[in-house]
Amino acid sequence: MSDSDNKPEKAIVLLSGGLDSATVLAIANERFDCHALSFDYAQRSLSEINAAQRLADKFSASFQLIHIDEGVMAGSALTDDSIAVPEDAVDEGDIPVTYVPARNTLFLSHALAVAEVMSSQDIFIGVNAVDYSGYPDCRPEFIRAYEDMANLATRAGVEGKRLRIHTPLIDKSKAEIIRMGDALGVDYGLTVSCYQANAEGEACGHCDSCLLRQKGFEEVGVSDPTRYF
Amino acid sequence: MSDSDNKPEKAIVLLSGGLDSATVLAIANERFDCHALSFDYAQRSLSEINAAQRLADKFSASFQLIHIDEGVMAGSALTDDSIAVPEDAVDEGDIPVTYVPARNTLFLSHALAVAEVMSSQDIFIGVNAVDYSGYPDCRPEFIRAYEDMANLATRAGVEGKRLRIHTPLIDKSKAEIIRMGDALGVDYGLTVSCYQANAEGEACGHCDSCLLRQKGFEEVGVSDPTRYF
Repeated sequence: MSDSDNKPEKAIVLLSGGLDSATVLAIANERFDCHALSFDYAQRSLSEINAAQRLADKFSASFQLIHIDEGVMAGSALTDDSIAVPEDAVDEGDIPVTYVPARNTLFLSHALAVAEVMSSQDIFIGVNAVDYSGYPDCRPEFIRAYEDMANLATRAGVEGKRLRIHTPLIDKSKAEIIRMGDALGVDYGLTVSCYQANAEGEACGHCDSCLLRQKGFEEVGVSDPTRYF
Repeated sequence: MSDSDNKPEKAIVLLSGGLDSATVLAIANERFDCHALSFDYAQRSLSEINAAQRLADKFSASFQLIHIDEGVMAGSALTDDSIAVPEDAVDEGDIPVTYVPARNTLFLSHALAVAEVMSSQDIFIGVNAVDYSGYPDCRPEFIRAYEDMANLATRAGVEGKRLRIHTPLIDKSKAEIIRMGDALGVDYGLTVSCYQANAEGEACGHCDSCLLRQKGFEEVGVSDPTRYF
């Protein structure tokens, strides 16, 4: 009996290869047959895609890499080499320079199409409104509005089936997320959080994402398996 | 003085190369400096992309072709060769087989990212709730929900600027659309409406889209410049 026979319902899981989305995959995997989506959007760190592939394999999830044209999400420190990634202080600006235009909207919209094609009504995304409060598309009100829109946009809504956007981490601290993932057997050594990780997946240790991750592991009191360059 | 100096505000116009979106471009061009977006999503008729490029040139709009991965919007008669395009009777089913999963959501989401990158607050789309009432993503309630979501998703909403989704054709008949476009100088000979047009942009004359177009031109009482194969 295969894994998918035990879990007849399929879920689409947005998987960046970072700590948060790895934890979300572990959570979704408890109940659903998971299909993981990763994106190549000409981001600075492409090693996260390799991390995502390894995580999907680990949880026996099917894996799909989707390309988004270069330039569509320009103007962020994560997609434009001329804008430096801030280091050694968590960016407390209104909207951090690492914000990527309409990224979660585009990721969710691809997930919505794939969900419709696969007859899935469940999409998981690892947004977090605690550590990423400056990103407009990580806020609970955005997710609620997206879900409402999605149910009007597609066949599911017309046919009276409710499509759900699951955000199991939205109100969790990094430490809580690590504890949840640990309990579900996530190997955080496979994940890449750094905004400017090198090709081998080694982290800088200085960007917002590295700092938030380090703080989380310190709070939990376990050692972070991150490799640094 | 260039055209864009006269119209300081930029609009993003979704341009399929068909009759409706050509009319929308003409309408948007009255007030805005237009940037046209077309999509290659492995659709049956790729000649519409050439039509879109010619229409953009005609209205001095900048033109961007965006690729969406094959398979993301599968399962429609327009994206799957194994599903026939219905002929010689307008599909009155609940949701026509030519419905493409989450298409307008994906198109609008790319437009949203591009609008944010270009500091535009205005997106135009040629949806029509009269002739395409079976497409969930052509309904006014979908567009309103999308606009609400878009304003939560992006920088514009956080900074108190309202992003607008313009749908100038949403309640218009095909005949009314043709009259509007005629008055604005649209050369309908450049447009391709057919769901299965050949590489030269010649139409079948039998699909829903051809039938609705023919009916529109008959009502207006002018001859349709469409070339048939």
